Amino acid sequence: MADSPNCDLKTLSPLQLFERVTEQGEKVRALKAGKAPKDEVDAAVRMLLSLKLSYKTTTGQDYQAGLPPKDLVLINNGTTKEEDEDLVDPWNVQTSNAKGVDYDKLIVRFGSSKIDTDLINRIERAIGQKPHHFLRRGIFFSHRDMDQVLDAYENKKPFYLYTGRGPSSQAMHVGHLIPFMFTKWLQEVFDVPLVIQLTDDEKYLWKDMTIEKAYEYARENAKDIIACGFDINKTFIFSDLDYLGTSAGFYRNIVKVQKHVTFNQVKGIFGFTDSDCIGKISFPAIQAAPSFSSSFPQIFNGKENIQCLIPCAIDQDPYFRMTRDVAPRIGQPKPALLHSVFFPALQGAQTKMSASDPNSSIFLTDTPKQIKTKINKHAFSGGRDTIEEHRKYGGNCDVDVSFMYLTFFLEDDDRLEQLKQAYTSGELLTGELKKVLIETMQPLVAAHQERRKQVTDEIVKQFMTPRKLAFEF
Amino acid sequence: MADSPNCDLKTLSPLQLFERVTEQGEKVRALKAGKAPKDEVDAAVRMLLSLKLSYKTTTGQDYQAGLPPKDLVLINNGTTKEEDEDLVDPWNVQTSNAKGVDYDKLIVRFGSSKIDTDLINRIERAIGQKPHHFLRRGIFFSHRDMDQVLDAYENKKPFYLYTGRGPSSQAMHVGHLIPFMFTKWLQEVFDVPLVIQLTDDEKYLWKDMTIEKAYEYARENAKDIIACGFDINKTFIFSDLDYLGTSAGFYRNIVKVQKHVTFNQVKGIFGFTDSDCIGKISFPAIQAAPSFSSSFPQIFNGKENIQCLIPCAIDQDPYFRMTRDVAPRIGQPKPALLHSVFFPALQGAQTKMSASDPNSSIFLTDTPKQIKTKINKHAFSGGRDTIEEHRKYGGNCDVDVSFMYLTFFLEDDDRLEQLKQAYTSGELLTGELKKVLIETMQPLVAAHQERRKQVTDEIVKQFMTPRKLAFEF
Repeated sequence: MADSPNCDLKTLSPLQLFERVTEQGEKVRALKAGKAPKDEVDAAVRMLLSLKLSYKTTTGQDYQAGLPPKDLVLINNGTTKEEDEDLVDPWNVQTSNAKGVDYDKLIVRFGSSKIDTDLINRIERAIGQKPHHFLRRGIFFSHRDMDQVLDAYENKKPFYLYTGRGPSSQAMHVGHLIPFMFTKWLQEVFDVPLVIQLTDDEKYLWKDMTIEKAYEYARENAKDIIACGFDINKTFIFSDLDYLGTSAGFYRNIVKVQKHVTFNQVKGIFGFTDSDCIGKISFPAIQAAPSFSSSFPQIFNGKENIQCLIPCAIDQDPYFRMTRDVAPRIGQPKPALLHSVFFPALQGAQTKMSASDPNSSIFLTDTPKQIKTKINKHAFSGGRDTIEEHRKYGGNCDVDVSFMYLTFFLEDDDRLEQLKQAYTSGELLTGELKKVLIETMQPLVAAHQERRKQVTDEIVKQFMTPRKLAFEF
Repeated sequence: MADSPNCDLKTLSPLQLFERVTEQGEKVRALKAGKAPKDEVDAAVRMLLSLKLSYKTTTGQDYQAGLPPKDLVLINNGTTKEEDEDLVDPWNVQTSNAKGVDYDKLIVRFGSSKIDTDLINRIERAIGQKPHHFLRRGIFFSHRDMDQVLDAYENKKPFYLYTGRGPSSQAMHVGHLIPFMFTKWLQEVFDVPLVIQLTDDEKYLWKDMTIEKAYEYARENAKDIIACGFDINKTFIFSDLDYLGTSAGFYRNIVKVQKHVTFNQVKGIFGFTDSDCIGKISFPAIQAAPSFSSSFPQIFNGKENIQCLIPCAIDQDPYFRMTRDVAPRIGQPKPALLHSVFFPALQGAQTKMSASDPNSSIFLTDTPKQIKTKINKHAFSGGRDTIEEHRKYGGNCDVDVSFMYLTFFLEDDDRLEQLKQAYTSGELLTGELKKVLIETMQPLVAAHQERRKQVTDEIVKQFMTPRKLAFEF
């Protein structure tokens, strides 16, 4: 058949096949939701079934949404993941443990350092105030060279923050805010410039999406990011598709990184195959380049050696391990990193939240009612099966998603500790814990929506215009 | 079968068949997307299946989207090259034949078309003047879709010229001028815009060279190019390192090409390996993108579909075969091409001239004395060992480098023919032929040097500034 997908599927890797099935599933859902003509829906469904068959033939496994193929465990260094290890790379997070990924093991495997009490205390001394609860509660749990950043800070040497987002859809969920909330705090306490990369080119390369759509998502996502409260005089947000065509400094750093990384290396780090497009293969350099201040001559006055600190979720670490490997070879300082844990799906901490499943997350566009329904209906509970058992044995905060969410969003330490004790002892029931979460999330999301409404296109344009910031270099 | 395509497919090359299948596949998709009547779609699908069958019969391979037929693609990694075949790719030209590369064989292997008398006559009619001696003498010997360019021209539809240079050193030799001399003539007779790419990024990636050096060479080379006499109002010269950071349109086309070419493909076309840096692997997209008018919104007013014609040496064809394969998949017209032979080294036509060996070439910086010495000392002669033998048997113009150079640079057809007869008959001695060449090259190089002196940094800057040209689109 002319439109049989099998003709060119043999060359796809299991992960690519998995992505094709996922995309086709989304397409079918979109067609159905949009009430497309029956024959169109039927054709899309046939294609989906055919893709699933190819997937099964290739991997020996049935396709399961959200669960990438098992043998994809070739992460980061080309060695095979052991049976009980978690899968963590920029496109997949997978664990069999209800508590979520084992972060201590990840630190060892990635070769990063734990954010321990000593470091948190040092940060407190440096900034002269209580560290953010994301630090105190181990939500940012791992780092690379944070000591050097503090050395520089204490010696009045400048540094800057760099974080980013892949704008894969208009819909952002509360988990997406974690790095931005933390970055905002870092910017405030250290008073440093911040650059935020929107990798619309990446999304165009990875997804079945036009360039125009990816760029549109970038600008829409910028509104949610700006709504976190960043200082317009100290923050530069950029879309790759735009900024690459605006800054000779950026492209020069990209091509420098591209000269010093081989296909063998990106194959090992990211699991690329010979069937991947050359855009994916060279993309890591584009995420690497903002780690170097010379990518932003308008901000840093052309200065090359200003230290960069990157707050991000741990799944982005492969990009920056690569960057740190290249940096000295192109005469640039290695970026420092602060790594966060993953934000759990409502259904449980085994996977990262997904923007493609509306019930897996609380979205920034959800109404108070939707938030209430989602939490009551979908938030995985660590409570007991019956009230009697719960009163007797207590709930398990380690696997309870409502409690996990409160760890992220309830700032009051004492209140959180009370809730934990009450829930663990059985005094507090699941429904009551969920109620606390609902009452925490509803105003938080509503306030975000209110701030987002104030973000006009003109404000977005200002944030995204390459310009000098309120710092002298 | 009435609509069987087989009747006329037997004469097509595997690559042409491949392109027919690809085009038909696109047609089917377009019909389906446009909800065309069922019988129309069915007919198109039948045609597609029939084409795929022809393809399989001809090549012995199943058609795979994006994967051109094997024996055409693997030209430069040595695996499929036959013993007596010439090696021709963007980085190597090698033949064992003193007459140089066998260009007729190359046309068959590359799947291009010969520039025959009919085409030359058609060009003459179109422009109303005698075609350039590079055309008349077979120096530009091969093309792709030149007929379409002439169709467009005759129908008053616009097209533009695109050529380029890799600025690997400050020193350019006379052979480097060939594509520019011809392009200048094309620009004059057709009166069309011209873009000239200086791939300083490529040179940085391939050579042991800093970015700054590559960029400096680009600007120095631009002076020699401008000295060929291009019209500043109709010509845009750009360095990749500069222009990529100036034009969002350019990067968008690059990333579009990068999405539609796999590592497998560039491995086949360019012979890249897993040990190559990711910059090399993704570079072909950067040489491809100027083939699309949307890479130059300032010139073409954002118009997407203006036909491009690329005059270049045949060794650059792999880039544009790839470009032509991708073009329809990203909704762009395929660029047309005019291919030149290689300029021979003084020592003989077995290899291309090399800028790294000062005696292999006449450089644009050579003094009259250097020119004389080089030609007398190094120009490979087709004359006989002794004067007596030469008078008796005559010289061989087919391998005589002085005569070859005159073919390039002596515009007077009658004089060239006289020289050929006199040399072949033995009447003219090697020393005398060399004297004619010296007297031809000395004023030519001196005049170039004189024009180059007039090219100030300010003029270079004007040529290299993205701007509107003297055309309306």
